[in-house]
Amino acid sequence: MSRLPSAVSEYSTRGGTSSYETRCTMPSDSNSRRCEASTFSVTPGSSRRSSPNRRHGCSCSAHRISTFHLPPITSIAASIPQTCPSGVPGLFSVAMPPPLRPAGSPRGKHPPESAYLITTGPWTSLIGMAHTTVDPTAKTPVTLLGLGAMGTALARTWLAAGHPVTVWNRTPSRATALAADGASVAATAAEAVAANTLVVVCLLDDASIDQALAGTDLTGRDLVNLTTSTPEQARARAAWAHERGARYLDGGIMAVPPMIGVPQAGGYVFYSGSRELFDRHRPTLAVPVDTRWVGEDPGHAALHDVALLSAMYGMFAGAAHAFALIRKEDIDPTALAPLLADWLTAMAPAVHQTADQLRTGDYTTNVVSNLAMQVAGTPTFLATAEQQGVSPELLTPYFDLMRRRLAEGNGNEDLTGVVDLLLR
Amino acid sequence: MSRLPSAVSEYSTRGGTSSYETRCTMPSDSNSRRCEASTFSVTPGSSRRSSPNRRHGCSCSAHRISTFHLPPITSIAASIPQTCPSGVPGLFSVAMPPPLRPAGSPRGKHPPESAYLITTGPWTSLIGMAHTTVDPTAKTPVTLLGLGAMGTALARTWLAAGHPVTVWNRTPSRATALAADGASVAATAAEAVAANTLVVVCLLDDASIDQALAGTDLTGRDLVNLTTSTPEQARARAAWAHERGARYLDGGIMAVPPMIGVPQAGGYVFYSGSRELFDRHRPTLAVPVDTRWVGEDPGHAALHDVALLSAMYGMFAGAAHAFALIRKEDIDPTALAPLLADWLTAMAPAVHQTADQLRTGDYTTNVVSNLAMQVAGTPTFLATAEQQGVSPELLTPYFDLMRRRLAEGNGNEDLTGVVDLLLR
Repeated sequence: MSRLPSAVSEYSTRGGTSSYETRCTMPSDSNSRRCEASTFSVTPGSSRRSSPNRRHGCSCSAHRISTFHLPPITSIAASIPQTCPSGVPGLFSVAMPPPLRPAGSPRGKHPPESAYLITTGPWTSLIGMAHTTVDPTAKTPVTLLGLGAMGTALARTWLAAGHPVTVWNRTPSRATALAADGASVAATAAEAVAANTLVVVCLLDDASIDQALAGTDLTGRDLVNLTTSTPEQARARAAWAHERGARYLDGGIMAVPPMIGVPQAGGYVFYSGSRELFDRHRPTLAVPVDTRWVGEDPGHAALHDVALLSAMYGMFAGAAHAFALIRKEDIDPTALAPLLADWLTAMAPAVHQTADQLRTGDYTTNVVSNLAMQVAGTPTFLATAEQQGVSPELLTPYFDLMRRRLAEGNGNEDLTGVVDLLLR
Repeated sequence: MSRLPSAVSEYSTRGGTSSYETRCTMPSDSNSRRCEASTFSVTPGSSRRSSPNRRHGCSCSAHRISTFHLPPITSIAASIPQTCPSGVPGLFSVAMPPPLRPAGSPRGKHPPESAYLITTGPWTSLIGMAHTTVDPTAKTPVTLLGLGAMGTALARTWLAAGHPVTVWNRTPSRATALAADGASVAATAAEAVAANTLVVVCLLDDASIDQALAGTDLTGRDLVNLTTSTPEQARARAAWAHERGARYLDGGIMAVPPMIGVPQAGGYVFYSGSRELFDRHRPTLAVPVDTRWVGEDPGHAALHDVALLSAMYGMFAGAAHAFALIRKEDIDPTALAPLLADWLTAMAPAVHQTADQLRTGDYTTNVVSNLAMQVAGTPTFLATAEQQGVSPELLTPYFDLMRRRLAEGNGNEDLTGVVDLLLR
């Protein structure tokens, strides 16, 4: 990932459209040859698909590049599925805002002033350059509605990264500290929305959005909704935003406030809705916390959010049962904890097999300990709970579903059939 | 851990008792001086405690060494808590069977023929030598009762490692393949038990042990019970074994059969009961799968086993709910799986905080997202399940406990209070 790609070799601007030819150079540890070149066009305010380009026996296709703002250039992002040459698809995305370095030998009319390096994915590739004279270090201004613990953490991180931030909160006092950090404090939500194109909403719940944005002009706004909501609420909110002339992106935050601005903490936000909006604002959105795209359906970010958190609560329920089991014994819970953490970590990848089985519909592939054996073991778990004076209420619902699936004649399956029993 | 210790400096044999003086040399990265010497005596068929020896300002005490078989030497194990000099206790145990190298300059009557290196712990120390002419590479013979998938995997691994293995199974046909691999097949359980001192039992359930061992002479046997059982069953089995003149060690297997003999798979067995038995047989027991000692209480191995597996079922229940949520959507479960696995892996260390809070009894320390906030979020999870046509039955028991704890006025706590509510 460390080798710089070859420079953009073709460059031209006609009307509002800029064309680029890129070369992507594989890293030196790849045992394959150079693959050139993908040509794609970029029109301000739109996106275009290029034709997959196949040369030298490998496909190096730029399927899409998002809106490329000229001028001013504030962000560029591209998602380029790459299947060459290992067969493993890689998704490139811009991780570094400009400027990186001047491109080497542009043949176009205007000399480029900054270049963008795609740094995520199996290859490194140069995909675009700015040819305007605007300040390439300018940061997208952000409006943020909602200054709870999460909103405040987001605002702080954007401010620290040099983004102009306009904030609004129902209780104005929460903005005081942020104002000292350089935030503009809007008196009303309408004023905050009017201040910037990019409007990020991080409120208590979906109903709070109606209250906060009532009577606000959203025309031409890029609305990014980080408020916790259900998938249906997100879909309805997307339609609501479109009716009001706004573009919409929904986010589901997989992080707690202390993880914001701390990349190594591993938090991220699921995004779904307008891919174009995501591509355009990704560099800004990625400043406080990492991003994960999960599709055009605006409900899918919330759905992924709820799915992962639901699974987490299941894990916490299991851990609570485990700690309860040792409570009356001479066992230090902090001695159990590392065993428990390691075991759960070791077992987490089992979800891959579940997913494979759900996809194929065959729940009997690669079964190590089948349903019948596992059901036969459940009395030991229930008896142990009984002996330790622990209610089995967190375990029995899953065991009951295992038994139901077994009673239906699926003893040779994995545990995957439980998923089917949950569906109505 | 790489530096060899100084040689045994004193060595004598009187009657059946061998005495050794050891020196333990600290690794070069330790900023402390040499600490010498611990003297301890070893009597065949018994164990002795040495006096803690304090010299040069640090304690280097061999608290116990297990039975040292002479002749034949087949195993040696020692557990030597070390507190010198860093203050961090280290537990030494023999990880390498002999021979390692001849000791340097024994002053005893008989020249030693092999030496044993303690390789686990903060120091490296030479603790014992064989002075007989027996083959120091001889492997402990094992009797194994029960040839289910797990028993068969265990037997295969011991055979592959050169241990003589005697097997018995209620259905004799399961022994056929093992006989071809070199196992001795006993016609009866009594015959199998009579064949070797070390008797490992891996049967269907606790009741099967009564059936299998009825009328068998266990006098002088080292009974290692890997049969899945409850803590109470394990305790009762220990008493039962002692009444019959056997020593007892209980094991809880944290592995499935394909993980046996594959160290990198990460499986292990919890052991509890006779520490002496564990120390003596650890090198043999560790051949098929790693070992973890969890205390003298014979029920604690089973309790740890059940606790970790219970937590795993909770995690699987959460994952099942997550997969059910996306079932009717255009989302590939194999795209969700890596997100889910990563998220669960990231959240698993949360059990450390739960353990810390349980130990101190203060559930309000370092709380990031308090109970009141988390309960406020539960309607989103339940509504999402409803919208996706998924039964909430795997989530609601935990949410109900969260609500009960909140109703009791603990909104500023972490989720830890749920553990208390499970106790009767």
